[in-house]
Amino acid sequence: MDETVHGYTHRKDDVLKRLRRIEGQTRGLQRMVEEDQYCIDVLTQVAAVTKALHAVSLGLLEDHLHHCVVDAARAGEREGQEKVDEALGAIARLVRS
Amino acid sequence: MDETVHGYTHRKDDVLKRLRRIEGQTRGLQRMVEEDQYCIDVLTQVAAVTKALHAVSLGLLEDHLHHCVVDAARAGEREGQEKVDEALGAIARLVRS
Amino acid sequence: MDETVHGYTHRKDDVLKRLRRIEGQTRGLQRMVEEDQYCIDVLTQVAAVTKALHAVSLGLLEDHLHHCVVDAARAGEREGQEKVDEALGAIARLVRS
Amino acid sequence: MDETVHGYTHRKDDVLKRLRRIEGQTRGLQRMVEEDQYCIDVLTQVAAVTKALHAVSLGLLEDHLHHCVVDAARAGEREGQEKVDEALGAIARLVRS
Repeated sequence: MDETVHGYTHRKDDVLKRLRRIEGQTRGLQRMVEEDQYCIDVLTQVAAVTKALHAVSLGLLEDHLHHCVVDAARAGEREGQEKVDEALGAIARLVRS
Repeated sequence: MDETVHGYTHRKDDVLKRLRRIEGQTRGLQRMVEEDQYCIDVLTQVAAVTKALHAVSLGLLEDHLHHCVVDAARAGEREGQEKVDEALGAIARLVRS
Repeated sequence: MDETVHGYTHRKDDVLKRLRRIEGQTRGLQRMVEEDQYCIDVLTQVAAVTKALHAVSLGLLEDHLHHCVVDAARAGEREGQEKVDEALGAIARLVRS
Repeated sequence: MDETVHGYTHRKDDVLKRLRRIEGQTRGLQRMVEEDQYCIDVLTQVAAVTKALHAVSLGLLEDHLHHCVVDAARAGEREGQEKVDEALGAIARLVRS
């Protein structure tokens, strides 16, 4: 059981709610395209969904650093460094995405 | 009818296919969170969806510039400038998103 | 002579002023690092310079679309499309940068 | 003395070298604009400088997480959380920049 307690476990419901809203927004985007709505309006809505995804990323990263990274660092220097390296990979992907 | 021919009309099917795949990916993300998968793996997948949305944006923008902007510029100087201003707003939102 | 009239020619002074300010900011960054200022403060300043560079990019792109692209489109359909393709390459690099 | 040992102290020379190169690149950009070089070429070069600044940010963040955050977490739970909050602010600014 213990293994499945991740950083975001404490606010799993909030993350799920955000992801469900994003799923609804991508369905709305399909409707806009099917109804031949104006390109610029579709683009504005795509930017809104991208922003919502970025907010999910930052939230997950916040939980990860607050829980997994700090816990690992408190357990041992090397464990902390390993978790930091992993987090840095995710941050680099986030900056480029 | 003519009014509903936008830049992306020519590849509406491709845009819709990409958006449906993104919708599926956001459902996959919800499953990952429900199954308590590791934060970093969820983050990697969120970055992949964000990248896919950026690709949709660039595709829509490409169609918009190739069709709407060039057509408007050919119809008149002022029409071209207005469409460019509108496109610039979308590009600025895209860069910030 | 005519060949050297680009989109930004009309506000070359403004672009140069911004770039000189950015050069000064990067010198300020070196001073911060030499004086061992706190990492987070250095990072905040790097983000400010990056933002200033993005503003220069959007300004250059604005001039380019308003002048080069609209002019080319008015000269001919194919000329317009070629300039649009070139601009799209720059926009994609901007979004990824 | 101890106070001035930050995350990046260990590779201050590398950070300074990168910043000096970026300063040179912004001077090069001014030359390009003064010589009326083509907008798209200027834009490509601005994107290169922005990318170089992002690399500096990620390097500083890496040092900060590896040193300041892990050290703080090992000193105490609360100290670790405070450093994490500070780092998250910097990451959010980086993602938006």
